[in-house]
Amino acid sequence: MPTDEFPCRMLIEAQWTAQVHARTDPSATRHLVDHAVVVEGTRIVEVLPVAEARERNPAAERIALPGHLLVPGFVNLHAHAAMALLRGVGDDLPLSTWLRERIWPLESKLVDPHFVRDGSTLAFAEMLLGGTTCVNDMYFYPEAAIDAALALGIRSAHGIIVVDFPTVYANDPAEYLRKGLALRDRMRDEALVSFCLAPHAPYTVADHALREIATLSREIGLPIHIHVHETSEEIAEGIAQHGKRPLARLDALGLVGPEMIAVHAVHLNEEDLHRLAAAGASVAHCPHSNARLACGIAPTARMHEMGIRVGIGTDSSASNNRLDVLGEARTASLLAKATSGRADAWCAERTLRAMTLDAAAALGLDAQIGSIEPGKQADLVAVDLRGAELSPVYDPISHLIYACGREHVTDVWVAGKPVVRTRQLADEEVRYAVREVVGRTGVWQNRVGEILSGRV
Amino acid sequence: MPTDEFPCRMLIEAQWTAQVHARTDPSATRHLVDHAVVVEGTRIVEVLPVAEARERNPAAERIALPGHLLVPGFVNLHAHAAMALLRGVGDDLPLSTWLRERIWPLESKLVDPHFVRDGSTLAFAEMLLGGTTCVNDMYFYPEAAIDAALALGIRSAHGIIVVDFPTVYANDPAEYLRKGLALRDRMRDEALVSFCLAPHAPYTVADHALREIATLSREIGLPIHIHVHETSEEIAEGIAQHGKRPLARLDALGLVGPEMIAVHAVHLNEEDLHRLAAAGASVAHCPHSNARLACGIAPTARMHEMGIRVGIGTDSSASNNRLDVLGEARTASLLAKATSGRADAWCAERTLRAMTLDAAAALGLDAQIGSIEPGKQADLVAVDLRGAELSPVYDPISHLIYACGREHVTDVWVAGKPVVRTRQLADEEVRYAVREVVGRTGVWQNRVGEILSGRV
Repeated sequence: MPTDEFPCRMLIEAQWTAQVHARTDPSATRHLVDHAVVVEGTRIVEVLPVAEARERNPAAERIALPGHLLVPGFVNLHAHAAMALLRGVGDDLPLSTWLRERIWPLESKLVDPHFVRDGSTLAFAEMLLGGTTCVNDMYFYPEAAIDAALALGIRSAHGIIVVDFPTVYANDPAEYLRKGLALRDRMRDEALVSFCLAPHAPYTVADHALREIATLSREIGLPIHIHVHETSEEIAEGIAQHGKRPLARLDALGLVGPEMIAVHAVHLNEEDLHRLAAAGASVAHCPHSNARLACGIAPTARMHEMGIRVGIGTDSSASNNRLDVLGEARTASLLAKATSGRADAWCAERTLRAMTLDAAAALGLDAQIGSIEPGKQADLVAVDLRGAELSPVYDPISHLIYACGREHVTDVWVAGKPVVRTRQLADEEVRYAVREVVGRTGVWQNRVGEILSGRV
Repeated sequence: MPTDEFPCRMLIEAQWTAQVHARTDPSATRHLVDHAVVVEGTRIVEVLPVAEARERNPAAERIALPGHLLVPGFVNLHAHAAMALLRGVGDDLPLSTWLRERIWPLESKLVDPHFVRDGSTLAFAEMLLGGTTCVNDMYFYPEAAIDAALALGIRSAHGIIVVDFPTVYANDPAEYLRKGLALRDRMRDEALVSFCLAPHAPYTVADHALREIATLSREIGLPIHIHVHETSEEIAEGIAQHGKRPLARLDALGLVGPEMIAVHAVHLNEEDLHRLAAAGASVAHCPHSNARLACGIAPTARMHEMGIRVGIGTDSSASNNRLDVLGEARTASLLAKATSGRADAWCAERTLRAMTLDAAAALGLDAQIGSIEPGKQADLVAVDLRGAELSPVYDPISHLIYACGREHVTDVWVAGKPVVRTRQLADEEVRYAVREVVGRTGVWQNRVGEILSGRV
């Protein structure tokens, strides 16, 4: 019997393991049965049959997960985490009323580092408990969101946000960029933190700033996280103002390339689709937000046919209300089938890839996360398939996408560290901190009430 | 201080109570704060401010639900409960392959009272835990489904199923009807059980049986539960065979009236919509099933504009995979907005009514259930809004529809009896029985595997 040279190793022994493979490997097994994922430190070192893994690692900690499916951590490709504090303030309102009478007045009076820290804490707790291990966030005061992310242990990418107009956070594109890049410098040793350039949208950033961002993206190798073609009005106004569709304008300015994360992309004609496909750009698909704001349904079956990489985003709690990547992915799959008339559109495996490896690739993180492979970070989610509502299990991946909900997530690891255990945040101090923030939401709610009633 | 003349009363004291009102009462309060629902036996006797309710009922049992929303029990307007045993056997397959290569071969070899009893037990357990207190079921051997329903304590309506062709259950329309009506006679003293006439679909039942069912429906006052206009192929074939659209044919045969529950109703032209509206018929909207089988998206915003009553159904676990009325209702609301371009389509309150009072009315049960009013049965659901993912609460009804999931349902009562307590089935024997069935699902799974592999 070999001696255990790695006493600090951990064996995660799930009944089923879905590794997730890149689209170039169609012959790969859908899922493994009775395998152990061997974790050392932050990384996956091996994936082996349980017996073999135990034999090679007799002193390793064993985590038995009978009846569970182990999958890569979910990646939320588009969020504004801080807005968790505004969840439900403007439901059932048309987009313009929602923005002009609720969201903008509230943000102008509320947003500061405290708001961002508290809102992001709520959002990241919700995400982790639902299996999201990595989030691509876009909001003001990203340093406060990073504080919350590091405290909770979630992996995060943060947008270096840029808009033309002044806000409490910065005054002009140059200042937005300067602040964001300085933050990136300060965070260079944080393994769980990365960055995107985040020009808000074609209609809020002028040509010269967009051009500068395109150049910067290529120079320093950052993705570009931008809202685009969310509504048909946006496109009509873009054409009126610039003589071309927003995506065509962004392309002319150098932003449509493999580093682009096109958020929403609801209204795409064939030209737009070909443009994204040819450029190797990614889409952050946010079906619940697009529906709730009555923007429409993105042509995701067509995107898939054309080989456009699509990840899943929740958008903010103010326009979606649930920061639930698994639920969002199920809707994505169902809508692709409903709108294409093809029941095999966005099959379960392809949907799982969208919410893991494809989203990781969009963020430029697919060498580190997004699948269960030796050498990658141990960002893992265990889902309990033993309930009456999930028995029997004919196909664990189909069950994950079509039958499970975030309520079935039991254990979550980020970079090898347990962050959720038996359905609650693993760290007692973190639980306490989240409870404190929940307690404080009453204060935020009062301030919101005062602002909306015109009292402040 | 008044003496308590009703020691057997129960006060359910939720922070918020959404009573649900008929559409004729637009001035009614959206929700009550700090009220008690006073329950005696199976019925609601009063809804009062907590202090007043306690003063009038000092010896009553008090159930404190701080941070909870109390709503009427959800009504699942279309299910085939027994098929829970086939959940996930044919995911990502086109409808015809799914039916011809999976569902029909399996049903022809598996369906018997044991299958129906076990499958229905799983389904009803899932439904109750998710807040569904009443289900409109359609399957062979309804006596076995009724056994399961009574054992678990869920309220149920059962289809007196009719198809032209012989099955293991019966040989011809006359025998299907005879068996169903005899069962109805035997069950006449079961307060939780009711019946519908359930001709399967226009394409599986001939004119003369449909005409007989229409007459019978009027004579004995039963709703007619029928699949209709699920796919465009069904309509094309109906026109080819009968010279008219299926709904027009059903109308000519006398089936389109206030007693009709038109299941799916995905493909409706203006003539169809006017026909349903003029007749006062109801629709059982099953958005997840319609999407997963790539049938399409029903025009529910238009139905609402035209005053057509719409309830929510899950359909079976074989075509939906989650028997989750709350999740289904959220999707219904989101799809109504996405397809109509109106963010105020299917607002939260209207969606809650669809999944409670409107579905109850479709079943002819709105005098008994569907809202929280004195005199009605105490079918109630408590939803915990205190989690990080739901804080703060600006509007509890919006939260219920857009932010909550079935995971937030904590307590459920049917006819005043607690059936779910703190997120688990209340009765220990019931829990044990469900665990036994879960254990047996492995046996069913093996039989399914044998049939699909051609070994039996």
